[in-house]
Amino acid sequence: MKVTNLDYISANPLLPEVRDAMIEAIKKDYGNPSSAHSLGDEARNILEKARERVALLINSPSPDDIVFTSSGTESINHAIKGVAFANAKKGKHIITSNIEHNSVLKSLRRLTKSGYRVTSVEVDKNGLVDPANVHKAITDQTILISIMHGNNEIGTIQPIKELCCIAREKNVLFHSDCVTSVGIMPVDVQELGIDLISFSANQFNGPSGVGGLYIRKGVNLWPLIDGGGQENGRRAGTENLIGIIGMGVAAEFAHQEMQSRLSHMKKLKNRLITGLKEKIDDIIINGHPELSLPNLVSLSVKYIEGESIVLMLDEEKIIVSTRSACASGSLRASHVLLSIDLDYADAQGTLVITFGKATTEDEIDRFINVLKNVVATLRDMSPLYKKSNT
Amino acid sequence: MKVTNLDYISANPLLPEVRDAMIEAIKKDYGNPSSAHSLGDEARNILEKARERVALLINSPSPDDIVFTSSGTESINHAIKGVAFANAKKGKHIITSNIEHNSVLKSLRRLTKSGYRVTSVEVDKNGLVDPANVHKAITDQTILISIMHGNNEIGTIQPIKELCCIAREKNVLFHSDCVTSVGIMPVDVQELGIDLISFSANQFNGPSGVGGLYIRKGVNLWPLIDGGGQENGRRAGTENLIGIIGMGVAAEFAHQEMQSRLSHMKKLKNRLITGLKEKIDDIIINGHPELSLPNLVSLSVKYIEGESIVLMLDEEKIIVSTRSACASGSLRASHVLLSIDLDYADAQGTLVITFGKATTEDEIDRFINVLKNVVATLRDMSPLYKKSNT
Repeated sequence: MKVTNLDYISANPLLPEVRDAMIEAIKKDYGNPSSAHSLGDEARNILEKARERVALLINSPSPDDIVFTSSGTESINHAIKGVAFANAKKGKHIITSNIEHNSVLKSLRRLTKSGYRVTSVEVDKNGLVDPANVHKAITDQTILISIMHGNNEIGTIQPIKELCCIAREKNVLFHSDCVTSVGIMPVDVQELGIDLISFSANQFNGPSGVGGLYIRKGVNLWPLIDGGGQENGRRAGTENLIGIIGMGVAAEFAHQEMQSRLSHMKKLKNRLITGLKEKIDDIIINGHPELSLPNLVSLSVKYIEGESIVLMLDEEKIIVSTRSACASGSLRASHVLLSIDLDYADAQGTLVITFGKATTEDEIDRFINVLKNVVATLRDMSPLYKKSNT
Repeated sequence: MKVTNLDYISANPLLPEVRDAMIEAIKKDYGNPSSAHSLGDEARNILEKARERVALLINSPSPDDIVFTSSGTESINHAIKGVAFANAKKGKHIITSNIEHNSVLKSLRRLTKSGYRVTSVEVDKNGLVDPANVHKAITDQTILISIMHGNNEIGTIQPIKELCCIAREKNVLFHSDCVTSVGIMPVDVQELGIDLISFSANQFNGPSGVGGLYIRKGVNLWPLIDGGGQENGRRAGTENLIGIIGMGVAAEFAHQEMQSRLSHMKKLKNRLITGLKEKIDDIIINGHPELSLPNLVSLSVKYIEGESIVLMLDEEKIIVSTRSACASGSLRASHVLLSIDLDYADAQGTLVITFGKATTEDEIDRFINVLKNVVATLRDMSPLYKKSNT
């Protein structure tokens, strides 16, 4: 039986066109884009073509504002640490939210060891940041606000445009971790009026190990990786040209197919939520009911553990996850779920279901039916469930 | 006519076996090694297989001592900045040489902005560091010595084992940029007694955009990229699995074929140097006559400019470079060549010729003959040459 992948957020399959472009790139074995000779010319042209495609996806004013990196995580580290170090003379205060990805949280924790101070703004029960709280947190020492776009565990989408307005008014730089949103929903850096966004190719059917960082012209930040003059001196190291070619093709398709993919995913998401509510009792759909990623559903199943559900679904060749792959293996309950006031037990019973262009309604229906049985089996064995029903 | 690539150091062609393994990886489209489900298991196994192969190449005591990065440059930044930040309380003094790659020099320059002090030890006319000078430079504030293995412009190989002994005796960490040596000549981290080495897949017929960092157990350094728990918490970000698979295969072949490749390259190097000396007047072969990379010749052609030679050779479909691709585009004379007391004009007339497994004697012979004609043509136009011969 074919595997039903409902864990797109960790392992988004390559588009066939991306796969073909990467295979062709490997066969051609382009030179080094930094070489002065003709082998370098060809490689350089291909690199810049990919940059144009990525720029178009986020409506960057110029391809030159895009830096290719090795992951969304590297982009986030580059943005946060780069701004912090370059602007230390102005101040050492940074504002974030309490539901950020580990890449943001741990970059900030690292900076606290060098004397930076971080204010973490709390979200409400839907996972939303209140812009008024961000406004209040700004001091004359604040140099950066970093708040994510779409949350990777509950899907909630933050009011980035409004937050950027506040930041600009106060002359503070704004970075957003847009790893889950770029290529999935429209992200327009000019319309948002944002300074920095981080994103990753594998979220929109491109390869793993390639990311992008948009840097608005004039933003002052240090490189994370110093050395040669690649990426206009902003990120040294010989480029992963094969991966970048894949990212370029994935970006072009994501841009062209944005509307059709969005309506497909919204249909699947509605079908999934409706089906789950109909067929399974005692569940919670987490995140904001409207302001939410189109390709993600966070589901808490009461009285049982998410890890057990994942394993039993895996035996039925259905792949889902309990949380960000980057945090799997950790036994602690998700900081995101605890931040939206889910109780500890419900947080432990939470699944993240993500899907994409190639996902079918049949797969969604099969998942609901199999999950129904898995939940029934697990609840039969659960002392918590028995107690609550007696 | 087929292109004769004598610029392996910037664009080392993929081994056919590496190419095939990467294409297969793209077709299989493995999952995310961090996922808890079965798609993750497969990806994780493949990742660890590649790590074992790389560990074997440098005789690492354990595969766990290898961290995969996105380039030799990232590895170098990670090692230098990571040791500097983690050991700041002990001291802020670092020792290096004056012929390091830009990745080392610029990482160090960055650290000087955060209060670190750098001592740069000079090399002799052959490009060799004198260990006694390193010994003298050590103070009780010294936390790190970073000296490269094989120089990327002149080929000189430093006495790393002796330098490591000094460092260990003084309780100072030792890092070596081994980008040009790992996979080209034997590099045995246990025999060297070294703490950290940086290396890159594309130097030994693997893909660009993948590097490695060896960290001896017990060495204290911060990650460069914080976030998820990948690479045992030492380097966050979803892995470039396709590239890493390619690096693993390239490492295995480099390890197996080390001796045959070495004797092939030594033969080519002798033939090249002998032929150049026979056929072209007024040339200088730079670097140490014996302690030198087997796959690199640095040649200064008096009275003419290297860039003109590169362009004319390019028209004849022969690819060489004037210096590190990372520094090409810069009009300044190479800091490496000036450090070995080459005069400015000779430094401007310098070519770096690098080759590898697939290079043939015929290609070397053709290069010498074409170069002879190119040099004659350019010297005919050179006022410098005419003056020196009247």
